[in-house]
Amino acid sequence: MTTPHIARAILHDDEPTVLPSYLKDQWVWPQEGGRISDISDPATGARIARATTTGLDSQGAVEHGRRCGHENLAKLSFHDRALILKDLALYLQEHKEQLYQISYHTGATSRDHLIDVDGGIGTLFVFSSKGRREMPNSTVMIDGSAEQLSRDGTFLGEHIYTPIPGVAVQINAFNFPVWGFLEKFAPAFIAGVPTILKPATPTSYVAAACVELMINSGLLPDGSLQLISGSAGDLLSHLDYRDHVAFTGSAGTAAMLRKQVADGVRFSAEADSLNAAILGEGVSVEDPEFDAYIRTLFGEISAKAGQKCTAIRRALVPESMVEAVVSALSQRINDKIIVGNPQDDATTMGPVVSLEQAEDVKAATQRLIEAGGVLKLGGPNAIDGAFVPPTILSFDGDNRWAEAVHTVEAFGPVVSVVAYHDRHEAIELAARGGGSLVATVCTHDAEEAAAYAQGIAAHHGRLHFLDRDDARSTTGHGSPLPHLIHGGPGRAGGGEELGGVRGIKHYMQRSAIQGTPDHLTAITGQWHRGARVNKVTRAEVDAGTGTHPFRKSLAELRIGDQFASDLRTVELKDILDFAHTTGDTFYAHTDEEAAMANPFFPRRVAHGYLLVSWAAGLFVEPQPGPVLANYGLENLRFITPVTYGDAIRVELTAKRITPRVTDDYGEVAWDTVLYNQNDEIVAQYDVLTLVEKEHLTYG
Amino acid sequence: MTTPHIARAILHDDEPTVLPSYLKDQWVWPQEGGRISDISDPATGARIARATTTGLDSQGAVEHGRRCGHENLAKLSFHDRALILKDLALYLQEHKEQLYQISYHTGATSRDHLIDVDGGIGTLFVFSSKGRREMPNSTVMIDGSAEQLSRDGTFLGEHIYTPIPGVAVQINAFNFPVWGFLEKFAPAFIAGVPTILKPATPTSYVAAACVELMINSGLLPDGSLQLISGSAGDLLSHLDYRDHVAFTGSAGTAAMLRKQVADGVRFSAEADSLNAAILGEGVSVEDPEFDAYIRTLFGEISAKAGQKCTAIRRALVPESMVEAVVSALSQRINDKIIVGNPQDDATTMGPVVSLEQAEDVKAATQRLIEAGGVLKLGGPNAIDGAFVPPTILSFDGDNRWAEAVHTVEAFGPVVSVVAYHDRHEAIELAARGGGSLVATVCTHDAEEAAAYAQGIAAHHGRLHFLDRDDARSTTGHGSPLPHLIHGGPGRAGGGEELGGVRGIKHYMQRSAIQGTPDHLTAITGQWHRGARVNKVTRAEVDAGTGTHPFRKSLAELRIGDQFASDLRTVELKDILDFAHTTGDTFYAHTDEEAAMANPFFPRRVAHGYLLVSWAAGLFVEPQPGPVLANYGLENLRFITPVTYGDAIRVELTAKRITPRVTDDYGEVAWDTVLYNQNDEIVAQYDVLTLVEKEHLTYG
Repeated sequence: MTTPHIARAILHDDEPTVLPSYLKDQWVWPQEGGRISDISDPATGARIARATTTGLDSQGAVEHGRRCGHENLAKLSFHDRALILKDLALYLQEHKEQLYQISYHTGATSRDHLIDVDGGIGTLFVFSSKGRREMPNSTVMIDGSAEQLSRDGTFLGEHIYTPIPGVAVQINAFNFPVWGFLEKFAPAFIAGVPTILKPATPTSYVAAACVELMINSGLLPDGSLQLISGSAGDLLSHLDYRDHVAFTGSAGTAAMLRKQVADGVRFSAEADSLNAAILGEGVSVEDPEFDAYIRTLFGEISAKAGQKCTAIRRALVPESMVEAVVSALSQRINDKIIVGNPQDDATTMGPVVSLEQAEDVKAATQRLIEAGGVLKLGGPNAIDGAFVPPTILSFDGDNRWAEAVHTVEAFGPVVSVVAYHDRHEAIELAARGGGSLVATVCTHDAEEAAAYAQGIAAHHGRLHFLDRDDARSTTGHGSPLPHLIHGGPGRAGGGEELGGVRGIKHYMQRSAIQGTPDHLTAITGQWHRGARVNKVTRAEVDAGTGTHPFRKSLAELRIGDQFASDLRTVELKDILDFAHTTGDTFYAHTDEEAAMANPFFPRRVAHGYLLVSWAAGLFVEPQPGPVLANYGLENLRFITPVTYGDAIRVELTAKRITPRVTDDYGEVAWDTVLYNQNDEIVAQYDVLTLVEKEHLTYG
Repeated sequence: MTTPHIARAILHDDEPTVLPSYLKDQWVWPQEGGRISDISDPATGARIARATTTGLDSQGAVEHGRRCGHENLAKLSFHDRALILKDLALYLQEHKEQLYQISYHTGATSRDHLIDVDGGIGTLFVFSSKGRREMPNSTVMIDGSAEQLSRDGTFLGEHIYTPIPGVAVQINAFNFPVWGFLEKFAPAFIAGVPTILKPATPTSYVAAACVELMINSGLLPDGSLQLISGSAGDLLSHLDYRDHVAFTGSAGTAAMLRKQVADGVRFSAEADSLNAAILGEGVSVEDPEFDAYIRTLFGEISAKAGQKCTAIRRALVPESMVEAVVSALSQRINDKIIVGNPQDDATTMGPVVSLEQAEDVKAATQRLIEAGGVLKLGGPNAIDGAFVPPTILSFDGDNRWAEAVHTVEAFGPVVSVVAYHDRHEAIELAARGGGSLVATVCTHDAEEAAAYAQGIAAHHGRLHFLDRDDARSTTGHGSPLPHLIHGGPGRAGGGEELGGVRGIKHYMQRSAIQGTPDHLTAITGQWHRGARVNKVTRAEVDAGTGTHPFRKSLAELRIGDQFASDLRTVELKDILDFAHTTGDTFYAHTDEEAAMANPFFPRRVAHGYLLVSWAAGLFVEPQPGPVLANYGLENLRFITPVTYGDAIRVELTAKRITPRVTDDYGEVAWDTVLYNQNDEIVAQYDVLTLVEKEHLTYG
């Protein structure tokens, strides 16, 4: 197969590199003719790449994803796919230097590479780990508990997630060509949905080089990743309700694309927003919160030259603190920021991505000044080519409510410091953003934090609370984390990405399923109470006519394998002895009169802990075998009290089997029910065990 | 306040009733003039009501909801709101006869009333119960686990749900004026979001009468429910990203409305779809599945004269079974269906809702015939006024793939029986619906059921599996349940409603919150490990200088109240004795050599059950007090093995306090951590207890 060596071409070829696409598992170059985009280094002005989509078969790409991509991904379990992500991350980590080198040409500094390249790789690691820890090792995910819909237990309802039957189209922003790609690719891939990536043209060569590395790794199943370098062409017109479009970029483009896609296409937008950072009312210049606040403002204005959709655009500070904040922030900027070519060692902030972008920032800053913003640092006249200096504006009086303050975004190193009078006003000002990705609230007063959460959470995708205790440990205002959702209502696009398994579910359809326990067991691969069992009794085990399920390795064990114990009678002495040895002398176990006065107990009852301990004694297989350990219990509920003279027995059924892809054992959850002598349920829970894949006779 | 007595006017007034709206907590009548809709009884043709929205202040209604409605709902916890729903349900149940009486005029039979009126009331009960059992008794809901985002535990991330800050607008379909209203109202109300109801005009008087009952109950907070009788007017133009629109109706209207609402408005559509019912390959006429299948087809064609968005439009049956299915279904229809005025006792199926609707059904049936459908029963020529007879069409050969079969819906008692050759084809035919609300799969073969789930779940909101075991207990193909999601991708609208708490979350914003354990504790009202505690030790309790948290009623107990025990050393004898008395003689506790060969244990170790039993002994307060019972454990994990010579201690902290609104006690979850002598975590879990609100000295 032809390999384009994109990074090498960018770094070493004299002529601008023509960027190929990767479609139907082939690198393809655009046909001659058609509209060509030239891509230049904003620091030097040198042309470094060219992009066009002329002649590309985007319909074929969609169909290839829906067929070949789905077919190959469906052969893998969630855990298999998650493990591939880990291997991909390791591969990219080995080769990331070439991504760093070409990223300099986008205006990014070496600190910016950490956000984009390392941040992208880190996202793969987190999704890989969460996919294996928090999802089943199968292709169907259960959502929530089963609902018993008939009294006799023959009709149940439950919810499952299965992969959407289409493609995951990404239309990305220019600012993070690697992270922006991988943060969408990872959840779609684990879900089992093939990706078609359409990166933003100005930095598309970085995304293309990343795709090339991933293809070269040989780790990806055919059809699971395609790349369109250049414009999206007619790609969107081939999508329908089976497909998903995830867009990151401006609110305006989001609105336009939303109209372009057919009714029913899942469309998720993440648009830059007028994010606020609120300094709490009680914070003085001496408080550690003040320093933390200034550092946060500084970090957000300087990282990626302010070209971050999460950057702070509005610093909301108590009126009395405006001058202190402007002054401390200006000081820090003057001390630390050197704007220049990121390839120069001294540079701490690069240019914005292009001359056009610098013009946009200039125009937006001008509008903010016209709306009453007082220029405190930098400003439109100090812009030089694509180099934009950190710019601070301040707003007070009626100007604080000017529409431009809350709607006009200068997508560069520009921040408005806006005065507020009281908490009520700060909440209203924050909400004026019309929906934002994130807000920081800087306060050590937990009650103030709670009031802000009540007041502004519904207008935000994320709230970041900052004080002296997390000032050093915070991951920062502007950093979306793979663990937490990213996105926000309204202006922020109304979408939601990441958030661990939450993000994976966006590439799956949730469906209710109704049927018998046998239906639901077959569909989910998890045993449901009432479904068929393969039962052995203690007597059969003792007689050698049946195999205890604890003697089966994962190779032999099947869901529905069940062990049923004999009855064991609880005597008063057992209860009193247990109270004595454990120290649990609660009156319900030891004081007949007091126990009878309790609304839930007939007289002295056995400890719940006695019952589960005895249950273990009833179901145990003492000799070494494939069951290595009982590592936990889930959802234990005591239903019917057991008093002396009652007897208990246990039924234990293999419910969920999760082989680990990287270990020679796996997890088995056992549905466990304790019954009394009248077959009433005494207690129910899941016993969690580690079981060998093959019996290796550790013991 | 003026009370319109809508039901009385419909039943007794000679003149058609002019329907009022309920806005800003007042009944208001439309101004004279403007476009008036006349509403007639489809069985008799008599005009019974008139609707117009001329002169209504819909912008004022939106603002009233956002302010007054939110303010009042915010004063109530989820449980408070849930309890109001229960009281509303009881009130409506008492007064449902008047809804029955006026519903006859919509063409509904008394069996149809059970679906609409009783189904609506039942939905309130289920949401009330789920809201109290599955949500916290507060105003913020936590989603998932906290994520530790820094090694030192000072920076955490978590997700919360808070009510969207706008209104929940309902635009409903004509077929279920009560259920369609209540199934959307219930989740919005529990979420804390005020509703504005815009019922479908042809049956709007039933919805209006239901609203009147609810207002008269005196149970609803001001601003939490408003009604617009007549057209929606300019209502949608006043909505923004804070608001939610839930539409039920045709796919065409859904597409139109979606374009009307501003970018960012949450829009959820539930549109009727071409739902399939698949007869499994192996089913013969003698099998009980055949009978269950015919009963299901019959139920769906006859209920509500087939005017159900979930009704079966396509019966997919093995080619060899087409004639048998057509014949058995025809027979059953001929035996059981009498079409007529629902007020006549003999009637088993009423007219469709209007003459216009009958015309639509006629035209759609005609299109199906033109597409190759062979008329087997009923048909367009047998339509008489608004009375539409049950109609069966069959499709075979190439006609099965005609677009009309899978896209043209006759919204009345009309079903197409479509032949399939094999499972692969049945899956493809089902998916041709382009996204449906529900499909039934009728098979006793669980593997076949699983294959269908894999094949078609992602095209459906719900799958209903039917066989001999659930034929009697099923709630039916066409019945959305409050427990399970309702909606579906593509043609079905792409929305999702109901599903218990899932449906409530659609009226809330999910936000990530990041901060210190103290921040998160204050925001969520649940204690997070690392947050401030109010700690007492065993020594302090014994000395009388501290109060054990188990001695505090809910009135006194605060989250963060903590008890710390002394250390207790585990001796080998303790382990062996515990093995002996419980019977749990697993080798890891009893056989030194075998234990050492196990990969997880250093040598013989204490039973996990011994540790949790001893922990109870370490934290117990033996004397009667406000803690009534330990009713369960959650998320128990054994982290570090404990061998003889080790010691354990326990820290128990009040984590989540949930007073029950209907009992004199509540639930308290205690974060419980066992440490060894080296302060390593041995085990962690939540202990679940019932605690009195005030100490009533039961004991």
